[in-house]
Amino acid sequence: MQVYLDNSATTKPSEYVIDAMSQSMREGYHNPSALYSSAMYAERDMVEACREIAKSLHANEKNVIFTSGGTESNNLAIMGHMQSHHEKGEILYSAAEHPAVKNTCMEAEKRFGCAAKEIPLLPNGSIDLDAFEAMLSPIVQMICVMQVSNETGVIMPIDEVCKLRDRLAPKAAIHVDGVQGYAREPFSMKQLSVQSYALSGHKINGPKGVGALVFQNGLRIVPQLFGGGQQGNIRSGTENTTGIAGLRAAVMHYPKDGAAHMRSLKVKLHELLTAALAETTVIGLPVDDKNSAGHILSVAFPPVRAETLLHALEGDGICVGTGSACSSKKGKRSVVLTAMKQSPEVMDSAIRISFCPSNTQEEMIYTADQIIKHVQMLRKFKRR
Amino acid sequence: MQVYLDNSATTKPSEYVIDAMSQSMREGYHNPSALYSSAMYAERDMVEACREIAKSLHANEKNVIFTSGGTESNNLAIMGHMQSHHEKGEILYSAAEHPAVKNTCMEAEKRFGCAAKEIPLLPNGSIDLDAFEAMLSPIVQMICVMQVSNETGVIMPIDEVCKLRDRLAPKAAIHVDGVQGYAREPFSMKQLSVQSYALSGHKINGPKGVGALVFQNGLRIVPQLFGGGQQGNIRSGTENTTGIAGLRAAVMHYPKDGAAHMRSLKVKLHELLTAALAETTVIGLPVDDKNSAGHILSVAFPPVRAETLLHALEGDGICVGTGSACSSKKGKRSVVLTAMKQSPEVMDSAIRISFCPSNTQEEMIYTADQIIKHVQMLRKFKRR
Repeated sequence: MQVYLDNSATTKPSEYVIDAMSQSMREGYHNPSALYSSAMYAERDMVEACREIAKSLHANEKNVIFTSGGTESNNLAIMGHMQSHHEKGEILYSAAEHPAVKNTCMEAEKRFGCAAKEIPLLPNGSIDLDAFEAMLSPIVQMICVMQVSNETGVIMPIDEVCKLRDRLAPKAAIHVDGVQGYAREPFSMKQLSVQSYALSGHKINGPKGVGALVFQNGLRIVPQLFGGGQQGNIRSGTENTTGIAGLRAAVMHYPKDGAAHMRSLKVKLHELLTAALAETTVIGLPVDDKNSAGHILSVAFPPVRAETLLHALEGDGICVGTGSACSSKKGKRSVVLTAMKQSPEVMDSAIRISFCPSNTQEEMIYTADQIIKHVQMLRKFKRR
Repeated sequence: MQVYLDNSATTKPSEYVIDAMSQSMREGYHNPSALYSSAMYAERDMVEACREIAKSLHANEKNVIFTSGGTESNNLAIMGHMQSHHEKGEILYSAAEHPAVKNTCMEAEKRFGCAAKEIPLLPNGSIDLDAFEAMLSPIVQMICVMQVSNETGVIMPIDEVCKLRDRLAPKAAIHVDGVQGYAREPFSMKQLSVQSYALSGHKINGPKGVGALVFQNGLRIVPQLFGGGQQGNIRSGTENTTGIAGLRAAVMHYPKDGAAHMRSLKVKLHELLTAALAETTVIGLPVDDKNSAGHILSVAFPPVRAETLLHALEGDGICVGTGSACSSKKGKRSVVLTAMKQSPEVMDSAIRISFCPSNTQEEMIYTADQIIKHVQMLRKFKRR
């Protein structure tokens, strides 16, 4: 049995997406900047993709910029906004942020002379709102808090972040990295007064190499790529109409009940594991907490090392992750779990199991069986 | 008959490319940064794409960075290199450069305080080597000259540029925008001492949204996107393995005799047009000049306005361009043709006909017939 449970690293594109991209390449391949009418169809396709994304986030369809993915979207939001300011000020980011946000904030500090400061986490993985409140002041220009933690699945209290900002740092723009939340957890740009939101295609069964930045009316974004002036001069470069067609298909076909289904899989898998294995340590919020996203389970079986378990499961056809994919090869302890003050033993044994809507209950039973088998064996070995 | 002759704006992806991308999405969708072996296959595919591109340019396969396209490749080359310098110095770019180069040089001037200076063109569209020589000095840090002009098809004298640089500005890095030349005109990083070369997938029947920057050993490039540290930390962001698979297929399957075939089409079309139409004005080098690329014909039929002819041809199923696609909607006169001191009448009537290897002789006959018909009719109308 092949079971892919590393969907927060990347997902398998759906057949809808493959079809949409193939059709774009066969029929809608024109350059949307050209003057003849077949090129206008390519442009219209892009407008429809904007509309679909805007609808999903209750945003204005004019405020969608297509990028090469989540990293570029986050970079554009942060650099593009910080560059629009003349005062130096401060930029705050949560300690749970992905390197695409954290490293960009640190680069903004170097480039623009603003101070980049980290918002601490609680041991449950959510941001420490008291500490955050104490950091706020009128000189804060930007606040970056992600929608869902890629490592723990914790849903961040964006509404509270907005309220505190309104009261204590009214000039600060809020940027939300929605790469791990988009389409899987609801998010409304209308309801929440965040200024920008980043999303990526390949986390929702869409293609790699395409993402978007969605922003509120009135947000100033200074371009970070220079060239032909496409996309209202905010993001130059021939639009990746094929990737955009794939992203649109991914958004349109993401199952409405996907989140509930993935949550049921997570609950099931967790139940099976805890019933059989003592010291099954869930990292982040409890599985039944409403702020624990349904598609990510971060769990540790100390003293079994994460890499050992990952490779053992690989032998059974099961793919899981360790922390975030992009840092997995560096062999360092997760800075996010460190910020949560997890014990070294828990950090070294944390695996991340992440779901997509096409995973099944049967896969959970098989996966639980294999994890239980390996953990029991490896623990015996470790304790001898 | 449908005839697509705007291949310098974008090309139709080949079935090889569509297949490679579909296969990547069905089988090789894993995140190349993950630790299990299926992810290593995704990584190996990327290594093979590097090898294929490096081979085609006689470059080192370790020196290939994948990007989101030509614009990002050019931006990374220029910003990434200029940021590595502490002295301010100068950056020179030819007046024929695409906005992705020219605007980036102007941004580098703003950001780093270097002086960005334009190398003038001769009326034939090539760079003015005497003027260039006079601009060189030891404080020049970077020189940007494209391989083939996207507007005129003129092949730039990169070998002369290298020799002059070696003698008069030995510290300057040479960056070549190869977007309009790659695979269609030979280029050797081994033979020419240029430091970096930008290419794009969608100009060679590959996918949009993917390109590469190829550089020489020892060139310093400061990252311009911040995040997970992929691609040796030079270009963060989950690699677009699907786009890369498509790019690789495009490179591998680009016909070896494509350039010669396109040149024969250009010669044929030009012959048919000049035989029937007086005042057929070729812009740039003569069609039979070895430095006139075989895949672009820039031609004017004054006083027939380019847009009028473009839309008339559209009615016959023929797509041609006017200048570069990305500036076509702005309705301004081409800055490149202006730098070539073309008359306003020629500039306003210049169309760009650009070929791909699957165009045919029959298409040339049909296209010539339609152009001749429209130009004769429109000229009568104009002269009444």
